[in-house]
Amino acid sequence: MDGDGGKRWRFANPNPAVAAAGERSIQRYLVQLHACLDEHGPRPIIPLSHGDPSSSACFRTTPEAEEAVAAAVRSGEYWATPPPPPASPLAVAEYLSGDLPYELCTDDIFLTSGCTQAIEIVMSVFGQPGANILLPKPGYPKHEAHAVFHRMEVRFYDLVPERGWEVDVESIEALADDNTVAIVITNPNNPCGNVYTYEHLSKIADTASKLGVLVIADEVYGHLVYGSNPFVPMGLFGETAPVLTLGAISKRWIVPGWRFGWIAICDPKGILKETKVVDSLRSFRNLTTDPATFIQGAIPHIMKNTNDEFFSKTVELLKETAEICYGEIMEIKCITCPHKPEGSFFMMVKLDVSQLLDICDDVDFCSKLVKEESVVLLPGRALGMENWLRITFALDPPRLKLGLERVKSFCQRHQSPSS
Amino acid sequence: MDGDGGKRWRFANPNPAVAAAGERSIQRYLVQLHACLDEHGPRPIIPLSHGDPSSSACFRTTPEAEEAVAAAVRSGEYWATPPPPPASPLAVAEYLSGDLPYELCTDDIFLTSGCTQAIEIVMSVFGQPGANILLPKPGYPKHEAHAVFHRMEVRFYDLVPERGWEVDVESIEALADDNTVAIVITNPNNPCGNVYTYEHLSKIADTASKLGVLVIADEVYGHLVYGSNPFVPMGLFGETAPVLTLGAISKRWIVPGWRFGWIAICDPKGILKETKVVDSLRSFRNLTTDPATFIQGAIPHIMKNTNDEFFSKTVELLKETAEICYGEIMEIKCITCPHKPEGSFFMMVKLDVSQLLDICDDVDFCSKLVKEESVVLLPGRALGMENWLRITFALDPPRLKLGLERVKSFCQRHQSPSS
Ligand SMILES: Cc1ncc(COP(=O)(O)O)c(C=O)c1O
Ligand SMILES: Cc1ncc(COP(=O)(O)O)c(C=O)c1O
Repeated sequence: MDGDGGKRWRFANPNPAVAAAGERSIQRYLVQLHACLDEHGPRPIIPLSHGDPSSSACFRTTPEAEEAVAAAVRSGEYWATPPPPPASPLAVAEYLSGDLPYELCTDDIFLTSGCTQAIEIVMSVFGQPGANILLPKPGYPKHEAHAVFHRMEVRFYDLVPERGWEVDVESIEALADDNTVAIVITNPNNPCGNVYTYEHLSKIADTASKLGVLVIADEVYGHLVYGSNPFVPMGLFGETAPVLTLGAISKRWIVPGWRFGWIAICDPKGILKETKVVDSLRSFRNLTTDPATFIQGAIPHIMKNTNDEFFSKTVELLKETAEICYGEIMEIKCITCPHKPEGSFFMMVKLDVSQLLDICDDVDFCSKLVKEESVVLLPGRALGMENWLRITFALDPPRLKLGLERVKSFCQRHQSPSS
Repeated sequence: MDGDGGKRWRFANPNPAVAAAGERSIQRYLVQLHACLDEHGPRPIIPLSHGDPSSSACFRTTPEAEEAVAAAVRSGEYWATPPPPPASPLAVAEYLSGDLPYELCTDDIFLTSGCTQAIEIVMSVFGQPGANILLPKPGYPKHEAHAVFHRMEVRFYDLVPERGWEVDVESIEALADDNTVAIVITNPNNPCGNVYTYEHLSKIADTASKLGVLVIADEVYGHLVYGSNPFVPMGLFGETAPVLTLGAISKRWIVPGWRFGWIAICDPKGILKETKVVDSLRSFRNLTTDPATFIQGAIPHIMKNTNDEFFSKTVELLKETAEICYGEIMEIKCITCPHKPEGSFFMMVKLDVSQLLDICDDVDFCSKLVKEESVVLLPGRALGMENWLRITFALDPPRLKLGLERVKSFCQRHQSPSS
């Protein structure tokens, strides 16, 4: 231990679970792709890979929400340490109860710093070596990352493209065992853009009940639907199996940077209380950080005073951009879309590399695409599906069209002569 | 598994590490104390137990900070998903570099949602079964809670009241072993109110270097000093042993609800990079939640434009309230203060229960005090020191005096006739 050169630092190579979790990250792929960008290229980048529409002027939050936050800041009432005015959990409880056959109360709501922290908290509470959890494939990587970080075993169930990306419910029973604690569903879905029917959710709840597991419903895209299926909150089936609903204002209000979300206990039979899960959530909540207090102060106004026009305008725009995206993709030979999106702002499409001359897989496709066309798509591998692509269509229509045209000409240029 | 009554829910009694961590919480004690409050009593409660002065009108943040946040909200530039404008990590790097002999750059700064999340991230990165960490006793319970949550072994070193709450440096070598990864220090100190000298910090750094461990310096009370010792950042000794400095605007700007903090890598020799600690911090940072973007947007203004008058007014007020508190406590027979506070806004005092008639310990003292006098103090047990008390003096002077007078009359009333 003498001398600086040979010195042994005892903290070297810290917690390997962090590195393992860090592998499950969209960002990691995006950083790699951005490194491929031809910075001297004349064309501005078109990001069809992001999860945040707010960079397009047409997807802007409502001035009322903005004003509510500015007013909360100026009021001088929101400097203090959380816990905060009970008005904000109450507002969330009322907001969610509007869609449920029972009433949530403030004790059923844990406020979080975005849906990300909701995922973190839930995985912290259930994650322990020996336990396993069922996650969708394809899926949102942070579910997996936080499960892995807490040394849970992750078991993937399939979303079936031919059935509109429904959960392969039959396979779930075979996947689960005595150490399975929960099944995670995302609805409306990222990355697939589908929306589950009442009947399908009911089947999932029945299966969860049969297995004795909990449902964790990531509904961060709640209400962002524009197809034939309405948005049905999983909490509707809270009597069948206990449900923890994760949500946020990030997507519906298009303010991911405001960092406000929640965990809602949708469990009218009180099973989560009885089994000490609620105690555990509360314990962990007290140890961790809170959303900024003036966001909390603004929430009652934001939840009550956002006019329907703002919501319907957003949904109309997503419907339009989904149509554009679906239509353009239909014209590209080597890419197929098994299911037209009807919720969230993503679409999963299948890439047939055999039709392409010099492209070996989805990552290669995306790397060359960004280099040649300054368009960023997300390789399916980032979401557990090799040779698929995720396209984000929440962009202003002209840029979206331009981006997809560039994808098309890229594919034509790389098309194998034999195909 | 049939029938609801005998149903086995597989998620029952989740992660025991959460419950273990939850035990280490000030809040837990405060909730218990508030339950003792005589709600029908005529007197408003005087909280001398909190960590947040912002409830007193005399401790208010500066209007410039408030305006900077309101402007960021109204600018419409801060809705998006973080990562944010690089201006805010740069502002933090410049702010901290002002006190250091070397320059921090933006890559040395990880933004966090308050100092709480800084603690969370650091413990997530180092915490793993088998590792151990050295924490101060008495100490801030969240350090312990997050270490315990990640299944680290916690080893306590003493702060020595007779030596102005200095670290018992000699004992540290005996405590550490090959699995020790870090020593945590808090300076200015919560709960003791002391401020470490240059010489003392230098000795700590030498010891860390000798042991091959890292220093985690919680400096959330940085610059809140009003005694003879100036504030010396631990980063000054980053060449001796690598330092991770944790901080926030919560205390110096009196805005704990704004949730903005940082981890600064003070390691000019690049040892943390070499040993992959920086990679690990970056990985975990990407998985977890960020501070709200408009706080990030406001930070450059807040850091550059806060006038010195605001800072010196706060420090003067703390000096005054520390004097009041020390003076009043000197007049109470059964309570002694080994060291007059010179930083942060806390004071640790020793309770001699043998002088009291019907009080068995610190928790009993605080429970009866809140019931009879509507004054809340924090029992030392919450911080690892039985039969001590922590007093917060960051309150407007009249209420502070009133609260301490009530403590005095409580002690007189319960005084043992033999003492
Ligand atoms: C399915 C899903 N869950 C959670 C999140 C995180 O949401 P937030 O930005 O509120 O943290 C996202 C964000 O993209 C998401 O797609
Ligand atoms: C020593 C210490 N560290 C960290 C914190 C947490 O700070 P923040 O409010 O910025 O999360 C506190 C708060 O009281 C503290 O006393």
